[in-house]
Amino acid sequence: MSLGKVYLLGAGPGAADLITVRGARILGQADVVLYDALVTEEMLALCPQAEKISVGKRSGQRSTAQTLINRQLVECAQKYKLVVRLKGGDPMLFGRADEELRALETAGIEVEIIPGITAALAAAASSHQPLTRRGIARSVAFFTSSTAPGQPEQTTLPDCDTLVQYMGGKEAIATARKLLDQGRSPDLPVVVVENCSRENERIMRLRLCELEQGLAHCQGPILVMIGEALAARK
Amino acid sequence: MSLGKVYLLGAGPGAADLITVRGARILGQADVVLYDALVTEEMLALCPQAEKISVGKRSGQRSTAQTLINRQLVECAQKYKLVVRLKGGDPMLFGRADEELRALETAGIEVEIIPGITAALAAAASSHQPLTRRGIARSVAFFTSSTAPGQPEQTTLPDCDTLVQYMGGKEAIATARKLLDQGRSPDLPVVVVENCSRENERIMRLRLCELEQGLAHCQGPILVMIGEALAARK
Repeated sequence: MSLGKVYLLGAGPGAADLITVRGARILGQADVVLYDALVTEEMLALCPQAEKISVGKRSGQRSTAQTLINRQLVECAQKYKLVVRLKGGDPMLFGRADEELRALETAGIEVEIIPGITAALAAAASSHQPLTRRGIARSVAFFTSSTAPGQPEQTTLPDCDTLVQYMGGKEAIATARKLLDQGRSPDLPVVVVENCSRENERIMRLRLCELEQGLAHCQGPILVMIGEALAARK
Repeated sequence: MSLGKVYLLGAGPGAADLITVRGARILGQADVVLYDALVTEEMLALCPQAEKISVGKRSGQRSTAQTLINRQLVECAQKYKLVVRLKGGDPMLFGRADEELRALETAGIEVEIIPGITAALAAAASSHQPLTRRGIARSVAFFTSSTAPGQPEQTTLPDCDTLVQYMGGKEAIATARKLLDQGRSPDLPVVVVENCSRENERIMRLRLCELEQGLAHCQGPILVMIGEALAARK
């Protein structure tokens, strides 16, 4: 039996034209697309020809278990020629790519990976706030507090100049508390971007001590960026 | 006098089809494009209509000083309608965007930022090595050791699970030494990607203690990724 090829493909932050040119081309050729909860309707409009399978996972919500997604990917490659696994953001950053790659490699299936714009960079662009700044910030941490089952909660924070917390609702509040406990200034600049690059995008500029209050009314996917580099200019 | 609009636009890692769809569209409409040393010929082929100005900077080589680039950007916006400042990778990460934004905002010029695929994510895709892994790595540091004039050298390393050093030739050797001095295993996995996403791309899989030797023959732009998440699978 001849096997198809699987693309792990980064959809980017949401806006359909923030996918790469290569990604859009492959999407338009796909036989079947397995997509995440973070992938938008307008992105799926780029592959009208493809069968579409939702395998959305959102923390705390009902979801397709990762092992089931792995199995679906292998089955699709046994059935179709061109399979796309479409992931919000970039596949190699907080995307469970390791687990999917293992399953596909074990089954002898060819894989190609197409990178995507990760949320942090789209949020920096939207808010006009560079994540690095000469003389101020030359290291950036992308991190998450989500834990694997049985894994202990992360107790220390990365010590980079700029911190970007992915999937950080309640977790970002814990981050703010830890930073304040460490003696960081309550005035440390924070930028929160909700629904990045989408029509309902919202940008909040806060101080570290205001983060908890600021997050109270967020409902969409958010990204929290903290550091001196995020200070408003002028 | 009516002023033009300036786009800070991420070209991505090099391959012409790893620019975003939005980026390619704007590039095709540009009146003038000011581009970096890291921007490839095939990328510039996307804007045959535009005047092209090289403002390339490569560490240690002769280059256009940043203040001159800032001035050129403002002058171009006074002369042209659609100005693109095309930067290798993403503009908001190690891209001096802060300095260019200040100059443009001071001159009252409208700016839009279009993100690009940053080298780390393209390198992760090329090497099939995710930067995060459940239970192993949930934080990634992107950092550089390049210093601003008068700024002290960075002596401590970020303490994230995965380290990605940008513009790290000699500097990555110093990083390896520091990690070994900290007691990290000489077997810690390292992936080096040279000329990422280009025809002459080269991927090296090393152990931490082999990094210095491995870098000896690199000449193109390189990216150094270090951490348990970079271990070969199976």
